[in-house]
Amino acid sequence: MIQIPSKKVERVVEAFSRLPGIGRKTALRLALHILSQDEIDADFLGNSIISMKRDTKTCTICHNISDSETCDICANPLRNKGILCIVEDVRDFLAIENTGQFTGRYHILGGIISPMDGIGPNDLHIDNIEHRIKQEEISEIILALPTTIEGDTTCYYIYKKLSHTNVKITTIARGVAIGDELEYTDEITLGRSIIYRHIYDGSSKRSS
Amino acid sequence: MIQIPSKKVERVVEAFSRLPGIGRKTALRLALHILSQDEIDADFLGNSIISMKRDTKTCTICHNISDSETCDICANPLRNKGILCIVEDVRDFLAIENTGQFTGRYHILGGIISPMDGIGPNDLHIDNIEHRIKQEEISEIILALPTTIEGDTTCYYIYKKLSHTNVKITTIARGVAIGDELEYTDEITLGRSIIYRHIYDGSSKRSS
Repeated sequence: MIQIPSKKVERVVEAFSRLPGIGRKTALRLALHILSQDEIDADFLGNSIISMKRDTKTCTICHNISDSETCDICANPLRNKGILCIVEDVRDFLAIENTGQFTGRYHILGGIISPMDGIGPNDLHIDNIEHRIKQEEISEIILALPTTIEGDTTCYYIYKKLSHTNVKITTIARGVAIGDELEYTDEITLGRSIIYRHIYDGSSKRSS
Repeated sequence: MIQIPSKKVERVVEAFSRLPGIGRKTALRLALHILSQDEIDADFLGNSIISMKRDTKTCTICHNISDSETCDICANPLRNKGILCIVEDVRDFLAIENTGQFTGRYHILGGIISPMDGIGPNDLHIDNIEHRIKQEEISEIILALPTTIEGDTTCYYIYKKLSHTNVKITTIARGVAIGDELEYTDEITLGRSIIYRHIYDGSSKRSS
């Protein structure tokens, strides 16, 4: 146990250590780096954290993080209202948004069903999907959830819940990643890529 | 480039990204984690950073970080005044202090001589070592600096600077680490361990 000769620094190390993936040694390295920088940088970091937690809102429609009641995507009239992409969290939303291949809207669940972690359907933003389908005249729901037992369970739960509606439910394609060797692809992924093969039309890139 | 849908979160990601070893993706993970926690935790982290930078002092004697003008070690009458251990930075000080093998005092250089990074002897706390030797009646200086060209240069510089004094100058032992296999030890380390071999007296542990 490292005894830091300053309680002020110790406090920062303790606070940093609570963050995921940051151990005590890394926390100390970060604290000493901040100490070696200008006060304006430390103030910027500290104040940004405080005001982020205080002021960041959750979009009332899609539950994404936002600076206002309605996020930029839900407020954007150019986004395709007919397609809704369901993702686990903000990071998965960003990953899909970065592809530039999706022009519809999102719905952030805020997690996936995981009995082991005590997370049930009621802890997630699942209930208002149906309301959105009616309200926004959604014709397709894309399930973009992780390929884990929890992800599959969540997909199935949502599928069952929406089965009485006329909405088309799709899921993102699983298959051999671009640039990957077939030889080294695991058999489940390769097997699925054969089951869900699609018509080859000479083009390698598609848009939604 | 990830477009985060909240400027408040973006600011935190930007501030975190400036820290060493933290990329944009890690910064986002940290920011979203803070968002998911209680406001009290975010305030604790933010305020700790701000007050650390504002209030942490540097010990006027050894240049260690401290909450007061004189650090706990320099102010401790039980520490051996006769031996001074010279280290590069606070992290190396902590590493040695954690061994529990050193009961003397420290002197933190604040870096090592590195012409490539534009760091010369005048940028370091070297000048007042001589003053300390006289003032504190120091009989031994232990050089505990890195085994790099820069570390060796700094050792030699201090050695030359103190050569007219009567102080005994030592350096920490370099050799095969405890638990390491001789077979896999690099030849320079193994070579040094033979040159600087010492009398074996049946005990495996010593104290300073």
